[in-house]
Amino acid sequence: MHKLFYPECIAVIGVSEREVNMGRLIMKNIFEFGYTGEVFPVGRDGGTVFGRDILPSVTDLPKGIDVAIVITPSAIIPEIINECGHKGIKWIVIESGGFGEFSESGKHLGNNVLQAAKKWGIRMVGPNGLGIINMDNSLVTPFVTIQGEALKKGKVAILSQSGGVLFGLINLLGSNNIGVSKVVSIGNKLDLDEIDYLTYLIDDKETEIIVLYLEGISNGRKLMDIAKRTTKPIIVQKTNRYASSNQIARFHTEALATDDRVVDAALKQAGIVRARTFREVVDFVKILSIPPMKGNNLAIISRSGGIAISIADFASEYGFRLSSFSESFLRHVQDTSKGANVIKRTNPLDLGDVFDFDFYAELTEDIMNEKADGVLFQLGTTSDMEVEASIALVETFDHLAGKYQKPISVYFLSDEQSTAYLKRVLNYPLFTDPAEAMLALAVSRDHYRQNREIEQDESFPLFSVDDTTISNILERACKEKRYLVLSEALEITKAAGIDTAPYAVCSDPDQAIEWADRFGYPLALKIDVPSIVHKTDIQGIALNIADHQALRQGFNTLLARARENGFGNGIVVQKWISQGTEIILGGKVDETFGPVGVVGFGGIYAETYNDTSLGILPLTEKEADALIAGLIGYPVLTGIRGQARRDIPELRGAILRLSRLMVDFNEIKGIDINPFILMDDGKGGFAVDARILTGQS
Amino acid sequence: MHKLFYPECIAVIGVSEREVNMGRLIMKNIFEFGYTGEVFPVGRDGGTVFGRDILPSVTDLPKGIDVAIVITPSAIIPEIINECGHKGIKWIVIESGGFGEFSESGKHLGNNVLQAAKKWGIRMVGPNGLGIINMDNSLVTPFVTIQGEALKKGKVAILSQSGGVLFGLINLLGSNNIGVSKVVSIGNKLDLDEIDYLTYLIDDKETEIIVLYLEGISNGRKLMDIAKRTTKPIIVQKTNRYASSNQIARFHTEALATDDRVVDAALKQAGIVRARTFREVVDFVKILSIPPMKGNNLAIISRSGGIAISIADFASEYGFRLSSFSESFLRHVQDTSKGANVIKRTNPLDLGDVFDFDFYAELTEDIMNEKADGVLFQLGTTSDMEVEASIALVETFDHLAGKYQKPISVYFLSDEQSTAYLKRVLNYPLFTDPAEAMLALAVSRDHYRQNREIEQDESFPLFSVDDTTISNILERACKEKRYLVLSEALEITKAAGIDTAPYAVCSDPDQAIEWADRFGYPLALKIDVPSIVHKTDIQGIALNIADHQALRQGFNTLLARARENGFGNGIVVQKWISQGTEIILGGKVDETFGPVGVVGFGGIYAETYNDTSLGILPLTEKEADALIAGLIGYPVLTGIRGQARRDIPELRGAILRLSRLMVDFNEIKGIDINPFILMDDGKGGFAVDARILTGQS
Repeated sequence: MHKLFYPECIAVIGVSEREVNMGRLIMKNIFEFGYTGEVFPVGRDGGTVFGRDILPSVTDLPKGIDVAIVITPSAIIPEIINECGHKGIKWIVIESGGFGEFSESGKHLGNNVLQAAKKWGIRMVGPNGLGIINMDNSLVTPFVTIQGEALKKGKVAILSQSGGVLFGLINLLGSNNIGVSKVVSIGNKLDLDEIDYLTYLIDDKETEIIVLYLEGISNGRKLMDIAKRTTKPIIVQKTNRYASSNQIARFHTEALATDDRVVDAALKQAGIVRARTFREVVDFVKILSIPPMKGNNLAIISRSGGIAISIADFASEYGFRLSSFSESFLRHVQDTSKGANVIKRTNPLDLGDVFDFDFYAELTEDIMNEKADGVLFQLGTTSDMEVEASIALVETFDHLAGKYQKPISVYFLSDEQSTAYLKRVLNYPLFTDPAEAMLALAVSRDHYRQNREIEQDESFPLFSVDDTTISNILERACKEKRYLVLSEALEITKAAGIDTAPYAVCSDPDQAIEWADRFGYPLALKIDVPSIVHKTDIQGIALNIADHQALRQGFNTLLARARENGFGNGIVVQKWISQGTEIILGGKVDETFGPVGVVGFGGIYAETYNDTSLGILPLTEKEADALIAGLIGYPVLTGIRGQARRDIPELRGAILRLSRLMVDFNEIKGIDINPFILMDDGKGGFAVDARILTGQS
Repeated sequence: MHKLFYPECIAVIGVSEREVNMGRLIMKNIFEFGYTGEVFPVGRDGGTVFGRDILPSVTDLPKGIDVAIVITPSAIIPEIINECGHKGIKWIVIESGGFGEFSESGKHLGNNVLQAAKKWGIRMVGPNGLGIINMDNSLVTPFVTIQGEALKKGKVAILSQSGGVLFGLINLLGSNNIGVSKVVSIGNKLDLDEIDYLTYLIDDKETEIIVLYLEGISNGRKLMDIAKRTTKPIIVQKTNRYASSNQIARFHTEALATDDRVVDAALKQAGIVRARTFREVVDFVKILSIPPMKGNNLAIISRSGGIAISIADFASEYGFRLSSFSESFLRHVQDTSKGANVIKRTNPLDLGDVFDFDFYAELTEDIMNEKADGVLFQLGTTSDMEVEASIALVETFDHLAGKYQKPISVYFLSDEQSTAYLKRVLNYPLFTDPAEAMLALAVSRDHYRQNREIEQDESFPLFSVDDTTISNILERACKEKRYLVLSEALEITKAAGIDTAPYAVCSDPDQAIEWADRFGYPLALKIDVPSIVHKTDIQGIALNIADHQALRQGFNTLLARARENGFGNGIVVQKWISQGTEIILGGKVDETFGPVGVVGFGGIYAETYNDTSLGILPLTEKEADALIAGLIGYPVLTGIRGQARRDIPELRGAILRLSRLMVDFNEIKGIDINPFILMDDGKGGFAVDARILTGQS
């Protein structure tokens, strides 16, 4: 991909002399930003543009063109691809729209383009985008006017699925004096997608932070792998969050693991920072450009006591610790501050009526030497005279942050025009709201923490699993083109090594009584229905069977009901677990991210509160623990109100074995183990009901 | 208070010729902003300032001074008050600090000042603030330099407890071209507080929106009453949110109703909009300055398809409905748009490559005629040439919003400097982030809705309550200087008309058996402990007593235990409600807002999720219903998974009766009815346990 970003010779196809011609606008950007390679314009009407002759056809191009940029009507693009192929061009950037995003025929056209490209071994950017930008060689190819001041060279790469968003982000980053390294408007991703560009960018020396704006993720698993391999911060804004939230879920797990929750979980697991809005993208770029917050101790310094209170509120909200300052520090403040008694020497530190900016700088350095892992400094100008002093102070902050490798988040409060001016001229980030400045620090801290976790690179745990049993059951159901039934789902659960409440499938009451004598009462009876059927819908369950008589009676009732409904597999007789904490364990296959696991509280309340954690499978032990600890109801598991601590290792084991099951057996598309009951005495837990959805079903 | 804001003659006390003298700065602001009344500077060193002689003493002032502004060292202020009193001055604005905010001796000084003022019938603003501003007569009294461009005349009044915040808000409002009517830096509220100023401002013709920045609320109940009486939007930013979150709660209700949750509930109930950050204050002022969103139908128009997707995400998040446009509208768009096929005619409406701003205006008016209750228009300039057109378009929006009485929330995306410029020059609000623009519309919609509710002004329900019984119990406990015991709490609950599980206090097993025959088994036994004691801590409960034998045995065990612990009141024998939905009902007295009620789910999970609603008492039926419906677990009450709908009117009745109890009996400081059990069959509910905290305890 190096040639795509560093071509020596390019062609722009679709150029005319007309002022509003988009090809001409591309030429204009290329010349104005100072790209020094050869550029050949092509356009059927000929003429000249920026002193170059417009070649009437691709066939007129010389050999040795590295990249062609295409902005012609979409219909003729297949032909252009062929012509480019003949000329030996290997990289084509298609900016024209009118493909899959537009109509069915456009989609068809896209396929033709793709086939033509494949024939020639051509790789394509777009279509339906703004092309690429490389600030390292000043190659700027969008067909829109870009103000030079918005676009400066820097360390941030942007990949965007939307041209409008890309344009907006460049403007916002430029407003904050943040330059870009490389930009790709990835458009419809007909050929190259975010994974291809990312793979290149994580090795690109010019790039230190990568921003992705995505409306859909092409290959979530690869995105995660790439992100885990790099130490460069990756910020993703994924929109279209509610796109498929209306789909009907056949399984509980499907309903709990909506697409957007899966995206959230996956990005977090991969150490990717997710931004919700354009403003957050820019804020996160800003904070991740300065040294990270490596711990939770925060010092707050403010020019206003009132504003300090608001800042401290947000510090609490984001879980920061505001430690007291050391005695020696406070003595030092006392000694050096001129207005000895006016500073309230607490954290937050209220600067009171000290207006001495040099003292501010000194104070901040002193605090960097304290145990604070980061500083939030609230700055604001009380008069125009303070603007220069503010600039100098922020420059000192830049220096101090580098020297101590700790972040100083500057919350700057002034009128918006002055703030906009300072943001544009300063080489250090300013935040303009206490919530924003604090969120940025929280992102810095959490990103650092998460990356340390990932670096520790734990291997996935191995289990002894009865693979043969599982394969046999799956194969049989597949051959018979049918859903798994309850007893098969339970058998797979058991074979995977998940403790399962003892059960047996019986075809007559006498057999049931034999098992009852082994299991002991009370028992549960369940019709052995296909996994897709809700047993309660057909009154297919009898609980709390206490003796032989009740068993016989219940069995016969259910058997009759099973026959009525055409379920001839018999009745599952199971040890009834009447008491315990109901957990739901589940798995589903996400279109983008593959196997996903869910753990959460079951039962009527817990489902209402939807207290579940999601993880992309397979999981390490640590990740499984993090899922459990991430539940809001976690205190229930550790034992509140004097109750016993539940058997959390048992739960972790069950999650990991479910993980193994989902990953090793592709035929399995979904699992609901609901409930998995953790015993009240803290000893063990049992899968009580299981449903498994297979590929055939 | 009219004279305070409209004085004909003022004195500024504490003025000198020195450049940095704060009194001089006050004089400077007064002159520069063009106040036309008489101004007399006072300062012991004399001299002249802005062409006026500085009088050496207050005693040198002429008669007829309406307002004195004081910025002297705090120690001499009691004396100054006396001198002002002699001169007949009735309003004093104290800007000096050094009072209760600073030290204990400062607090003492404050008391002296207050007493001196009371003696003379003087009312005071501050101390420790920036004074007052009235843009109607250009009276600008802060001792800090204020840029003229930040401060223009408008319709927004600001009351701020912090000078720094006030200064910041004025800057931010000015940046958005929003002017102010009257401003008070209320400081320490030694005499006048926010209630006094609010009372004046709601009748002030110059003021249409009122902003309050508060770190503590002086009289919450009055604040609510005033807010309910006015149709002027009131925006409150209350910080110090976690100030007392660490206090130890003796009662469950105390733990659930933390101060900040009470503030939230109270403001909502009074129709006050709460802002979390300075930015939100400004955003909410902006949206509440244009016509309100009267329904939930939103139309989104965007210049970029990608940005439209992000906007639509937030529309979902805030619960807006994106209805399809009518056929006739779409035909019209088709007919009038030049690029017939490029616009995706869905909601969000993507403007595609239509660059015609006149068409944008036309389109927006058409949509105002559709069923949309409001519009979010995403605008951004693709070149400098579009800036003028954007200004004209936003001016049209202003006109359309007024004509159709619907809001158009403009999300403007450009570089921050251009945006800051446009915000300062336009007379119509711009928002700069999709989340922000959408939140603003949600605030507009919710504020409108809430105000309609309040306007309907339902009266509080009346109940027949056995007042005599309640008074007798409370009086007896008061006289004996002791806590109420369980049986008394249950009796009060019953007397208030809340259905209570049948119980009797027994002193021996035979008596218990007599009651058992009346109640029927199973029974619960409880030691009749003082309300403050946790029965479980002393194993003071026996549940599921099934027969006479178990009753006798359990009774004797508990009786022995009661005696061991010195609780000699006997044992409560109660009908045991073994099944049902556990609810917690409670009440506490908040320092600021008085009696507060809590309703929520009980039991181990629900408490973990803290699913509770709070309301300031007394409640109307509607408000009680809203509390119940506001629970996340509300679907459990309406019956999920085929369960019966619980008896919600029963629950509402219990809440309203608890409300009556808390309001009518001042002696009661806290109530926990936990659990109140709603029967699974949907028929009724019963208070099972009750604790009541009284003033003496």
